[in-house]
Amino acid sequence: MLGNTYGRLFRVTTCGESYGEALQIIVDGVPAGLELSREEVQLELDRRRPGTSPIDSPREETDQVQIVAGVMNGVTTGAPVGLIIYNVDRQAIHVEQYRQVKDLIRPGHAEYTYYMKYGEYTDWCGAGRASGRETAGRVAAGAIAKKLLAREGIEVLGYVKECAGIAMRDMTFEEIKAHYRKNIINCPDLEAAEAMIQKVLEIKAAGDTAGGIVEVIARGVPPGLGEPVFDKLDAWLAFGLMGIGAVKGVEIGRGFAAAKMRGSEHNDIPYLEGEKVRFKTNNAGGLLGGISNGDDIVVRVAVKPTSTISIDQATVNMATMQEETLAAITRRDPTICPRLVSVAEAMVAITLVDHLMMWRGYQTVMGIENRWRKPWDKPPKW
Amino acid sequence: MLGNTYGRLFRVTTCGESYGEALQIIVDGVPAGLELSREEVQLELDRRRPGTSPIDSPREETDQVQIVAGVMNGVTTGAPVGLIIYNVDRQAIHVEQYRQVKDLIRPGHAEYTYYMKYGEYTDWCGAGRASGRETAGRVAAGAIAKKLLAREGIEVLGYVKECAGIAMRDMTFEEIKAHYRKNIINCPDLEAAEAMIQKVLEIKAAGDTAGGIVEVIARGVPPGLGEPVFDKLDAWLAFGLMGIGAVKGVEIGRGFAAAKMRGSEHNDIPYLEGEKVRFKTNNAGGLLGGISNGDDIVVRVAVKPTSTISIDQATVNMATMQEETLAAITRRDPTICPRLVSVAEAMVAITLVDHLMMWRGYQTVMGIENRWRKPWDKPPKW
Amino acid sequence: MLGNTYGRLFRVTTCGESYGEALQIIVDGVPAGLELSREEVQLELDRRRPGTSPIDSPREETDQVQIVAGVMNGVTTGAPVGLIIYNVDRQAIHVEQYRQVKDLIRPGHAEYTYYMKYGEYTDWCGAGRASGRETAGRVAAGAIAKKLLAREGIEVLGYVKECAGIAMRDMTFEEIKAHYRKNIINCPDLEAAEAMIQKVLEIKAAGDTAGGIVEVIARGVPPGLGEPVFDKLDAWLAFGLMGIGAVKGVEIGRGFAAAKMRGSEHNDIPYLEGEKVRFKTNNAGGLLGGISNGDDIVVRVAVKPTSTISIDQATVNMATMQEETLAAITRRDPTICPRLVSVAEAMVAITLVDHLMMWRGYQTVMGIENRWRKPWDKPPKW
Amino acid sequence: MLGNTYGRLFRVTTCGESYGEALQIIVDGVPAGLELSREEVQLELDRRRPGTSPIDSPREETDQVQIVAGVMNGVTTGAPVGLIIYNVDRQAIHVEQYRQVKDLIRPGHAEYTYYMKYGEYTDWCGAGRASGRETAGRVAAGAIAKKLLAREGIEVLGYVKECAGIAMRDMTFEEIKAHYRKNIINCPDLEAAEAMIQKVLEIKAAGDTAGGIVEVIARGVPPGLGEPVFDKLDAWLAFGLMGIGAVKGVEIGRGFAAAKMRGSEHNDIPYLEGEKVRFKTNNAGGLLGGISNGDDIVVRVAVKPTSTISIDQATVNMATMQEETLAAITRRDPTICPRLVSVAEAMVAITLVDHLMMWRGYQTVMGIENRWRKPWDKPPKW
Repeated sequence: MLGNTYGRLFRVTTCGESYGEALQIIVDGVPAGLELSREEVQLELDRRRPGTSPIDSPREETDQVQIVAGVMNGVTTGAPVGLIIYNVDRQAIHVEQYRQVKDLIRPGHAEYTYYMKYGEYTDWCGAGRASGRETAGRVAAGAIAKKLLAREGIEVLGYVKECAGIAMRDMTFEEIKAHYRKNIINCPDLEAAEAMIQKVLEIKAAGDTAGGIVEVIARGVPPGLGEPVFDKLDAWLAFGLMGIGAVKGVEIGRGFAAAKMRGSEHNDIPYLEGEKVRFKTNNAGGLLGGISNGDDIVVRVAVKPTSTISIDQATVNMATMQEETLAAITRRDPTICPRLVSVAEAMVAITLVDHLMMWRGYQTVMGIENRWRKPWDKPPKW
Repeated sequence: MLGNTYGRLFRVTTCGESYGEALQIIVDGVPAGLELSREEVQLELDRRRPGTSPIDSPREETDQVQIVAGVMNGVTTGAPVGLIIYNVDRQAIHVEQYRQVKDLIRPGHAEYTYYMKYGEYTDWCGAGRASGRETAGRVAAGAIAKKLLAREGIEVLGYVKECAGIAMRDMTFEEIKAHYRKNIINCPDLEAAEAMIQKVLEIKAAGDTAGGIVEVIARGVPPGLGEPVFDKLDAWLAFGLMGIGAVKGVEIGRGFAAAKMRGSEHNDIPYLEGEKVRFKTNNAGGLLGGISNGDDIVVRVAVKPTSTISIDQATVNMATMQEETLAAITRRDPTICPRLVSVAEAMVAITLVDHLMMWRGYQTVMGIENRWRKPWDKPPKW
Repeated sequence: MLGNTYGRLFRVTTCGESYGEALQIIVDGVPAGLELSREEVQLELDRRRPGTSPIDSPREETDQVQIVAGVMNGVTTGAPVGLIIYNVDRQAIHVEQYRQVKDLIRPGHAEYTYYMKYGEYTDWCGAGRASGRETAGRVAAGAIAKKLLAREGIEVLGYVKECAGIAMRDMTFEEIKAHYRKNIINCPDLEAAEAMIQKVLEIKAAGDTAGGIVEVIARGVPPGLGEPVFDKLDAWLAFGLMGIGAVKGVEIGRGFAAAKMRGSEHNDIPYLEGEKVRFKTNNAGGLLGGISNGDDIVVRVAVKPTSTISIDQATVNMATMQEETLAAITRRDPTICPRLVSVAEAMVAITLVDHLMMWRGYQTVMGIENRWRKPWDKPPKW
Repeated sequence: MLGNTYGRLFRVTTCGESYGEALQIIVDGVPAGLELSREEVQLELDRRRPGTSPIDSPREETDQVQIVAGVMNGVTTGAPVGLIIYNVDRQAIHVEQYRQVKDLIRPGHAEYTYYMKYGEYTDWCGAGRASGRETAGRVAAGAIAKKLLAREGIEVLGYVKECAGIAMRDMTFEEIKAHYRKNIINCPDLEAAEAMIQKVLEIKAAGDTAGGIVEVIARGVPPGLGEPVFDKLDAWLAFGLMGIGAVKGVEIGRGFAAAKMRGSEHNDIPYLEGEKVRFKTNNAGGLLGGISNGDDIVVRVAVKPTSTISIDQATVNMATMQEETLAAITRRDPTICPRLVSVAEAMVAITLVDHLMMWRGYQTVMGIENRWRKPWDKPPKW
């Protein structure tokens, strides 16, 4: 396993397993001078943590974070910020449950591939590193990224767009913001949210699980972010988001719907609003040629239904190489969509800070960024 | 622009613009001992190059590649392979056409964001670096990657799954292979292909353009590829594919359809075929927890309709800051789906070679990879 | 500050300051299946830690390490290994001492440049991240690297070659090994060691500090490690070693002495010992063209005298912008040579593991490494 | 071979061998808006190219460079700059000479290690990729880096400090600049230069070769460059410089001489010159804690004597595994010191641009760099 660092200049490194001692997070590239308290990071972690609703996993992790490096008297010093979250819910009874089924392939779960990769040394307890538990690290780092973005006037909002087949209605950014995280499913359309929750509870009662779609909007991103051709901003967003467990698809703007459109429909037509260039539509999702165009960045991820279900499943015992039945598992997330919102927001925020630094570093050497930084600042004739 | 290198150990670096002198491609990490001729690379380039059908751009680039480094007497030496493709279709008439409209924002096109990023220094000729022309570099590098994969028994096949709203029927890998690249739209369902072509010609006649969906299958990938948590194989595939111009979405296996499924439906059930672990379905698209499971890797990309259309469009003149009309443009791709097939295959192949090297490098230090490398090699009890 | 990760495939990330809460170390790319106990890591840390001799700093840090991730039942799982070392000697009296002089530039010390980089937010307590304290993280990670190397038959030995102007005599590898770390100055020439210690104590008594030269030998490195042209193994060794605080020079083999030699003297002449290629001398220090040749890798670093001295020094007050006098400081290392031995060994070991993984990953794709891996395995005719 | 890319944001990738078709250089991260002509790059290449003096190799390479990408109407566009240099002196007679000795290990030369790494596929012609020929790529990229630095008021000067045992006298920066590249050995001390040349010719006449020391000074580097702890600016300089063929040592400031000094001698004492902080000495070579302090950066490399000599040498035939004699070789560099000056300057310049971009990218996110950028700009109280 090599892939535990994300980013170029703003760089997040994490470790820690589902039933390990602790999660550690090192965030490199945090500029000096940012006020940062553990409470601010905790706030974001609380939004992700399990055990808070009937549609989450019942695991009771308090996810209390400590800042152990990089902050002095409440302000970042420029040194890498070190965070630690100790695991507290590691009762022997659960470890024993995992031990009993450790040789059985859990259908749809990463344990099989981990076993093929790491062999007999695989951490079989609660999925080890493959558990969604590692996403706490992303969220903690994301809290720092969001705070940096806020200083630049950039907001990052995520929400459940669709769950268990029920979609929210179209809403403006302002409406979404007004109803941000107002219910346990994190859907700003309160009516749809209610329907989603009922549907998930019903599916849960049947021992099954549900998937959905999470959308993230980033507003206020200046035009110019993204490094073509391989490091386009949308490529990095896809990289960061597809790396979240359970995500099986990523799309920008109209995404897959664009495949059915014609050029004349899909093209966003520019116009002038005073001296500012605006677009009549945002089918592009804020990205053209992999570079931000100043409009809202809109990205969606497809979340598969949790693979751990409370229904018996046929499987194979890897130790005996016999077919067997994996019994129903009760400790699980009926859907991970609401918790994934925090993780997706974090990955978008981390990616944006990283690109902001790359872009500024590159541009300032020639001084271009000082000349115009907003789409409405009049550029010189080219 | 920093992002012109892709990969960690197998690393592709390219340069070159639409109307520049040449495209250069440096492929680092090519092992010594691979027989490699310019004809093999040319074969792949010929599949991508424009001007070969009524649904492509009429630009006449011969895309003749030369190998200038890394190969001695027809065999790679371990040194980076250097390739060059000189641009030949750079007539003054076309340059002049681009000059005349250079101050007008082309709706849906990267020129606007390039201008916001690079200012008056932006290459305005034929979209410069933002042109699809750079993908020739990807395809050339992909030719080398594919050859390396073939030695490992890995095949990478791409095709147009849907175009202009017309989808191909479900086909087996063998059927797809049997009809690989048999028509100008690169769709293995010959009937659907015919319908797609007619539809695209119709849309072209209307001055408009069409989008679609390209699917790539990689067969024979050993289980174990992919580095969690941030460098999952699916994250890298999304990174590589979303970085292709015009791609607005990437999905693995069931992708966005998984969002509507239940866990009991989506989970792929393992069973035994002799001593081999097999899966009854492949909803996962060959990837669990970001690691290959030995099944076919199936990935799809959403391709937007080409932004350059032959219909007048409202726009803004960046020099005068006045609203204007951009006249119809005739030299364009009615759809880029068929040409994008080569590019998507290349990115998948490059990504797989890179991960194969990372995985092997890591595993060999403890000797795990020597113990079992195929899903059907019996693993030891864990 | 971005630079807190080292390595490509075997990757070490650290955080933590001199007077912060804790040091965290994340070691990525540790293969699954390595037995690893906290005691093994502790053993290496104990060799580096301060407060153990009259020629070290009197600071009393116990440097107790805990493994919080990546190890299950005493064996690595393939997940990143997480380590934490809490700082214990952080008495208010010392913090207060640092506060009183925080505006005064400490001559020869990094505080000035940190201030120029991070401004008023700089951690002024005990040099913050610029303190040698961070090297505990390197040593902890190095303990894992050394263990991996040992499994490959590679030994890494460091020692003080020269201190306070007194040089050790020439010794064979076996002699050095026999007297490895037998005294507080870590010099295998026991007679010279005694003289060095006396000299350092004398310099210490005068309020001053001493520099020296640390040498590291790596024996058993297979030929073939190192990636030309920019990632040569010697380039990486120089990168890793020059990044250690207080190091002002790095040389390989004869190093600067080679500048005065002639080709006929410097060339190491090969000969046969049975079927094995051997060299009559090792002026190259085991590296030709940046690739290991199978002979001992020999590398030396120049260590400057500790900048913190117990003598008054003229300086500038950055707050008042007045010239002032910095009073003698008593809490300091009279020389850091003996402690730097552990750090230099760690960086060499980490670099070797990283290159071993890169080389194997690359080579195995074509199967070259299986054909011959030792210099004495007969290679095929080329 | 993986290591053909150097840098993080300003990134140089090269390919090409001694007797291959061409060298290609791709320079990524060049900001838009830089005037750049092929003549400017050619000027730097002419300074490095062989065949121009009796103390160089007689090989006649004209090293004519073409810019094939990234520049439009004489100005960079932000796209990666692509350069190509075709090899012209590739006569069959020389290839044949190399073929005849290809199985003989050339003492002191990289061919042996390349063979151990790449086996029978190794490029045996004129050392292939291990040849100094690749340094033309570094110099071409360095020409761009130098031009960027010049715009920031940073000068990079290299020269031969010592050759064949003869050292130049101490000279001020102004004196060095006044006599920059005034003779074939590139030593600014004209008297010493004369003695060096005579000594090298004498050694050449004896069939032998000479080493030396090359020094590079960078003046005008703002304080604050360098990313601790692993990416210190001195670590990167060592990385870049040690990766040049024939370099066996790198030192900063006093370097190895610092090992013999005491703290009170080595510390550079700060004082005020008006409102500017100055240092009475520059023993640190402009770097404290791996961060530039605003003073001249002074770095030296040890250059070994060329391994190819015109004297018979005992060796081993790798094909027959017999001991043999390698006959005298006449086509060679009596010393590569004067040519290495250009290469060392290039690596320093590339490294500085890269760090300038990283630093600016990082700092601008918090706005620190706008507050004070010169050592004499009064910083706020911390």
